[in-house]
Amino acid sequence: MKAARLYQYDSAVKGPEFLKLVEVPDPKIQDADDVIVRIGGAGLCRTDLHIIEGVWRSKVGVQLPYTPGHENAGWVEDTGAEVRHFKRGDAVIVHPLITDGSCPACRRGNDMHCENGSFPGIGRDGGFAQYLHVKERNLVRLPDTVTPKQVAPHADAGLTAYHAADKAVKILRPGDFAVIIGFGGLGHIAYQVLAAKSAAQIIVVDRSKLALSLAEELGAKHLIAGGDNAVRDVLQLTRGKGAEAVLDFVGEGGSIEQGLAMTRNAGSYYIIGYGGTIQVPAIDMIFSEKNIIGNLVGSYADLTELMTLAGAGRVRLATAFYPLGEINQAIADLHHGRIKGRAVLIP
Amino acid sequence: MKAARLYQYDSAVKGPEFLKLVEVPDPKIQDADDVIVRIGGAGLCRTDLHIIEGVWRSKVGVQLPYTPGHENAGWVEDTGAEVRHFKRGDAVIVHPLITDGSCPACRRGNDMHCENGSFPGIGRDGGFAQYLHVKERNLVRLPDTVTPKQVAPHADAGLTAYHAADKAVKILRPGDFAVIIGFGGLGHIAYQVLAAKSAAQIIVVDRSKLALSLAEELGAKHLIAGGDNAVRDVLQLTRGKGAEAVLDFVGEGGSIEQGLAMTRNAGSYYIIGYGGTIQVPAIDMIFSEKNIIGNLVGSYADLTELMTLAGAGRVRLATAFYPLGEINQAIADLHHGRIKGRAVLIP
Amino acid sequence: MKAARLYQYDSAVKGPEFLKLVEVPDPKIQDADDVIVRIGGAGLCRTDLHIIEGVWRSKVGVQLPYTPGHENAGWVEDTGAEVRHFKRGDAVIVHPLITDGSCPACRRGNDMHCENGSFPGIGRDGGFAQYLHVKERNLVRLPDTVTPKQVAPHADAGLTAYHAADKAVKILRPGDFAVIIGFGGLGHIAYQVLAAKSAAQIIVVDRSKLALSLAEELGAKHLIAGGDNAVRDVLQLTRGKGAEAVLDFVGEGGSIEQGLAMTRNAGSYYIIGYGGTIQVPAIDMIFSEKNIIGNLVGSYADLTELMTLAGAGRVRLATAFYPLGEINQAIADLHHGRIKGRAVLIP
Amino acid sequence: MKAARLYQYDSAVKGPEFLKLVEVPDPKIQDADDVIVRIGGAGLCRTDLHIIEGVWRSKVGVQLPYTPGHENAGWVEDTGAEVRHFKRGDAVIVHPLITDGSCPACRRGNDMHCENGSFPGIGRDGGFAQYLHVKERNLVRLPDTVTPKQVAPHADAGLTAYHAADKAVKILRPGDFAVIIGFGGLGHIAYQVLAAKSAAQIIVVDRSKLALSLAEELGAKHLIAGGDNAVRDVLQLTRGKGAEAVLDFVGEGGSIEQGLAMTRNAGSYYIIGYGGTIQVPAIDMIFSEKNIIGNLVGSYADLTELMTLAGAGRVRLATAFYPLGEINQAIADLHHGRIKGRAVLIP
Repeated sequence: MKAARLYQYDSAVKGPEFLKLVEVPDPKIQDADDVIVRIGGAGLCRTDLHIIEGVWRSKVGVQLPYTPGHENAGWVEDTGAEVRHFKRGDAVIVHPLITDGSCPACRRGNDMHCENGSFPGIGRDGGFAQYLHVKERNLVRLPDTVTPKQVAPHADAGLTAYHAADKAVKILRPGDFAVIIGFGGLGHIAYQVLAAKSAAQIIVVDRSKLALSLAEELGAKHLIAGGDNAVRDVLQLTRGKGAEAVLDFVGEGGSIEQGLAMTRNAGSYYIIGYGGTIQVPAIDMIFSEKNIIGNLVGSYADLTELMTLAGAGRVRLATAFYPLGEINQAIADLHHGRIKGRAVLIP
Repeated sequence: MKAARLYQYDSAVKGPEFLKLVEVPDPKIQDADDVIVRIGGAGLCRTDLHIIEGVWRSKVGVQLPYTPGHENAGWVEDTGAEVRHFKRGDAVIVHPLITDGSCPACRRGNDMHCENGSFPGIGRDGGFAQYLHVKERNLVRLPDTVTPKQVAPHADAGLTAYHAADKAVKILRPGDFAVIIGFGGLGHIAYQVLAAKSAAQIIVVDRSKLALSLAEELGAKHLIAGGDNAVRDVLQLTRGKGAEAVLDFVGEGGSIEQGLAMTRNAGSYYIIGYGGTIQVPAIDMIFSEKNIIGNLVGSYADLTELMTLAGAGRVRLATAFYPLGEINQAIADLHHGRIKGRAVLIP
Repeated sequence: MKAARLYQYDSAVKGPEFLKLVEVPDPKIQDADDVIVRIGGAGLCRTDLHIIEGVWRSKVGVQLPYTPGHENAGWVEDTGAEVRHFKRGDAVIVHPLITDGSCPACRRGNDMHCENGSFPGIGRDGGFAQYLHVKERNLVRLPDTVTPKQVAPHADAGLTAYHAADKAVKILRPGDFAVIIGFGGLGHIAYQVLAAKSAAQIIVVDRSKLALSLAEELGAKHLIAGGDNAVRDVLQLTRGKGAEAVLDFVGEGGSIEQGLAMTRNAGSYYIIGYGGTIQVPAIDMIFSEKNIIGNLVGSYADLTELMTLAGAGRVRLATAFYPLGEINQAIADLHHGRIKGRAVLIP
Repeated sequence: MKAARLYQYDSAVKGPEFLKLVEVPDPKIQDADDVIVRIGGAGLCRTDLHIIEGVWRSKVGVQLPYTPGHENAGWVEDTGAEVRHFKRGDAVIVHPLITDGSCPACRRGNDMHCENGSFPGIGRDGGFAQYLHVKERNLVRLPDTVTPKQVAPHADAGLTAYHAADKAVKILRPGDFAVIIGFGGLGHIAYQVLAAKSAAQIIVVDRSKLALSLAEELGAKHLIAGGDNAVRDVLQLTRGKGAEAVLDFVGEGGSIEQGLAMTRNAGSYYIIGYGGTIQVPAIDMIFSEKNIIGNLVGSYADLTELMTLAGAGRVRLATAFYPLGEINQAIADLHHGRIKGRAVLIP
C-alpha cells in the first residue's frame, strides 16, 4: 500500500519533502481482536508538525521510518477471529489510543489514562496510508449521516475539545458565562458542544476577524477581539465578575494570564492549548477559589457522544481535503497558516 | 468591656505592645437579627500577624483603631427582636463571614462567596474582647460535648481545612492516596477529616519531627520527612504514580513544585497555604490532566458538619490558652514559633 | 383592593361561584423585609381546583375565607425598611415558598425543603387579588424581554417542570433518550428545558393529538400516541432497552406502570404527576437497578435559571388570559378541559 | 475433579441430597484470555436455595446438570496465552460477572450492566468444585493479609452491600443518619462500609437480638428492635425527620413500608433485599421528594475497593466453613437458619 512516512526529524520543518510517499506491505491481522481499517480520511494536526520537528523524539521513542497520522476514520477491511461487533465495510472512526480495557483507569471509564495504551501515528504506524492496523476496542461506528473523511479530525482534535467542553458543561447553569479563547480547530468544536449541551452564554475571544466571523456564522452572540482589551471586555459583559468557565485553546502569548483574569471567583479555567506557562501566586488561588483544570484527549465514551452530535448535525467540522499524494503541500500549508479548518488527507 | 485593639500598623511586627488593651463601650443590639456573643475563646491566627504587619491594610480598608479576632466562640448574651433560633446562654461558634443569605452564592449554599459579606475581626470589630456583635445567621450551636474555648479556632483555621479536605473526600476511593503537606494547625485538622470521611491511605509530609510525631499519635501510618527526598518517597509509596489528592498547607518554599510532582495523573492538587507562586508549563497540565484547586474558607454548612465531628470526638484541636490580658505575649509567641497547636485568647 | 376569595369548600366543584369577588383591605408592609407586589398575572392551576374541592382542607389548616393564587408575578409596589435589592416598579416573579434562609435546607440551596416555609395562596392569602404580601427573599427580577402576565405560571408549574427536567439533564448524555409522558402545562416546559440543556433524544408520549401537534411545533421529533402501545413504541425507538430518563407528568391511569416499563436498566423514572400509586416488586428494582425519583417544586435558584431561559426565548409558555373578574369562568373552563395552555388571571 | 452438581430442581428444597457430588472433567483453557482458578472457598448464598427451588429456572435457561457456586475465590491454576497480569499461584477473588469490556456499560465503568455478560454458577458452571473456568477480566488480586476462603462471599454478597452502601456514602454528610434494616450477611458488610467511608450516624434495625449484639460488637451505637415500633424509634432518634439514607436488606414483611417511612424528605431509600412489593402513592413521592434506589451487584472497580477495605481489616466477614463434601448439610443449615454469618465451601 501507499504510505507517507517520516525518515528523519527536521527541527526547522523546512520541507519541501517532510514525509516520503512510499510503497509498504499492507498491514495484516495478527491477533484475534485485530482490525484493518481502510482509511477514508486522516486528519493533519499541529501535533504532526511537532513530530516532524522532532519535539516528540525523546518522548515516544518510535523507530524511523514510520507513518504518522493519528486522526483516522474509514471502513473496516479485515477482522480477527474474535471481532464480533464489526464486519467488513462498516464505516468507523478510530479512537486514538489503543487501550487494554482492564487497567484501573479503563475499568472506570477513563480509558485515555490507560496504563498500557499505545498511539497509532505517534508511537507506531498511523493513518497517512491506505490501511491502518488497530484493535476492535478502538472503533466507533459512524452514524449513517456522516462519512469518514468528514469526521476524521474528530478522532483527536474534536475529541479533545469535546472532553474539555463536557467538563465545563457540568458546572454551567443557564445564565452562566463560558469563554472560549481561540476559535480554531478545537475552539469551534467546543463552541458547538457547549451550545448543544448547555444554556450558558458563550463568549468567543479571538485575535482573528476571520475566526470571529466563523463564530458568528455558528450563532455566537458575544464576540470579543483578542488582545489587550479582551479581559476588560469580558468583565464588562459579565458585570465585572468574570465567567464561570474559561476554555483556553491558545495556551500561550498572554492567553493564560488573560484567561485566569477572565475567570470568576469559584470558577474554572480549562487549559487545552499549550506553549506557555501558568504562573499564579498561591494567595490569588485562595482568595478567588478558582480551579485550573488540565485536559487530555477524551475517552472512548466521549467519542461515541461526539459522533452522536456529529451525526445529528449539531457539531460540524470545517475541513479542507487533500489527496494523500499532496501531503507535503498540506503540511506546508498548515505550517504557514494557509488552511481554513482542519486538513484531511484522502488516500 | 475590655478589648485588645490595633492602633497602628507595624510592618516589622516588633512589639512588645502589638495591640492595646483598652475599655470600650459594650456592643449593643441594633437590628432585629443582631446577636451579642459573650466570647468564650478567640483563636489567634497567622492572619492576625499579617494584619498587624499591615499586609491587609489596603485590602480591607478598616479604620484604626479596631479590634481583631476572627475565630470566635462563646455564649449568646443578647438577641434582637427577630432572633428565633438562639437564646441567652446558648453555646455557639461564629461563622467568620456575615452573609446576606439572598445573593446567588448564598442561595446555592456557597455563602463564603457572598456578594455582600463582611468579616468581624478583619473588616470590623472582632473577638479579642469580652463581647462580639454579629448576626443570627453566623451562629452554629455547639454540641454538648465541647466548650467554646476548645473549638474557637475551628471558626476559620478548622473550617478552611475542613472545606479543602471535603473536596478531596469526593474523589478519594478506598486504596487511593492523599498527601497532606504541612501537619500544622490546618493540616492536623485535614488529616482527621480525611480519616473520618474516607478510606484513603493518608501520607503526611512535614519537615518537623515534632509534627510527624503528632501525626503518628493521631494514627497516621505513612510519615515522610519534608525536604529534597519527599517527592521520591511519596512516589515510592504510590508505586511511582503519585497520589490522587495532594493538600498543600504550606504553599511556599518548594512545597508547590513538590506537591504538583506528588500528584498523580488525573489527580488534584489543593492549594491552601500561601506565600509562593504556582508555576507549571501548560503542556504538563495537558499530558497529566491534573487539576489545581484553590481553597477559601468553608461555608456555614461546612461549619455545622465540622462541629458534628468535633462533638463526636472525631476531630480534636491542639490548643494553647492565654488570658486576653496576655495577648501581646501570645502574639510574640506565635511570631517566634513557640506555640504548639493554636493559641486561644480567653477574656 | 379586589380579591377572589374562597368562602367554603365544595367537594363537587360545582360552581358557578367557586370564589367570591370582594373588596378587602390592601395588604400593608409590616416587617422590614416585607414587599407588596402589584399582581400583573396569577396562574390558575389544577391545585386550585383541589383546594376548592377541599382536598387540602386538612393539610394546610387555612382559615376561610382566604384568597388562593400561588403562581404570581407583577411589580413591586411597596417595600419594608431593609429591602435593598428591589424598588417600586421592578418587574418580578414570586417564588411560591416564603423561606427563612437559615435552616439547614436553605443553607444548602434546597430552600423548597425549608423547615419554616409558608405558601401564599395555599396556607395564607395569595395572588387572585390586586396586591400580594410577600418577602424580599421570594422575588426574582424579570428579564426585560418578558412581562409578568407572560411568566406567572412559571412560579409553580414551570418551576416544578424545570426542577425535574434539570435532574434528568444531569444523567442524560448525547444519544441518550428522555421520555416525557404528558405534554401539558408542565410537560411542554420540561421538553423545552431538556432541549435547551441537553443533547438527549426526546420522546413525547401523549394520548391527545392536539398535545402531540404542539410538541411537533416546538420541534419534537419522536411523537408517540399514549395508550396500550406506548411502551412497545418507546422500546422500539430505543432498541428494546428503554430510555435513560422517563418524566411522568400524568402519574395515574396506567402512566406509572408504563413509565417504569419504558425506563432502561440503571435509568431513572421521575414522578411529577399524581393520582395513581407506584407498585413494583422489590426484585424488579434489583435486577433492573432502576431509580424512582420524587419531585417537589424547584428552588429559588432554579427559578432564576428558568427566568433566564424564558428571557432568552428558550422556554415559552402557552397561556390564556382572563380578567380577574372572570375567575369563576376560568375555573369552570379549567375544570372542563377547555383551556389551551395555562390560564392566567389579570386584575 | 470433584463437583457438587444440580440434577433436578426441587421446588420444596427437601433434600437431603440437593446437589450430587460427582467426578467431572477438569476445565481446560480454551481462549487466550481464559484462566482456571483452583477454588479456595466458595460462598453459599440464599440465591443458591432459590436456584435449587427452581425459581430461576426460566430466567437463566441453564442445562441440568450443572455446578452452582457464584461467590468464588482461590488461586490461579492455569492461564491462556494472552493472560498478562496473573500467573499460577496468585490469590484472587472472582468478580461474579464475565463481562466483555467493550459494550457502552463496560466502557463507562458500569460493567455489572454489561450487555454480553454471563454468570458462572448461575448461567454456567460455578465454584462448588475444585476448579473454575473464568476470564482474566474477572480476577481481582487479593491483598496479602487475607486468604481466599476468608473473602469468598465478598464476590457477591459483600459486593452487593458495598455497591449500595457506596451510593449512600455519596449523600451522607457528618451528622446525617443512615439506617440499615437487616443486619445479616449483607447488612453487616454495609455497616462496616458506611463506618469506613462516612461520618454519618448509623442506626441498625433488626428483629433478632443476636444480630443487634453483633452490630454492637462492630461498634454500632444506635440499635433498634425491628417490628411495630421501629419507625417510631427511628423518628425519635432523628428529631422526627427520618434518616437521609435507609438501606433495606430485608425487602419484605413490612420492611419496605417501614423503610420508606423512616426516610427523610429529600432522602433516599435503597432497596437491596427482596420478596415484597414497593407500594407508594405518587403524591407521597412528590410532597416528600424521596428517592427509591434499586441496587444490583457492584462493578469490578467496586470489588477492588472492597478488597482494599478487607485487606486493611476495615471490613470483616462472619463465616462458617464446610468441606465441599458436606455441601448438602450446609444447604440444609442455611435453609433452616442455623448458620451464623456466611457459609463457605472448601474443596
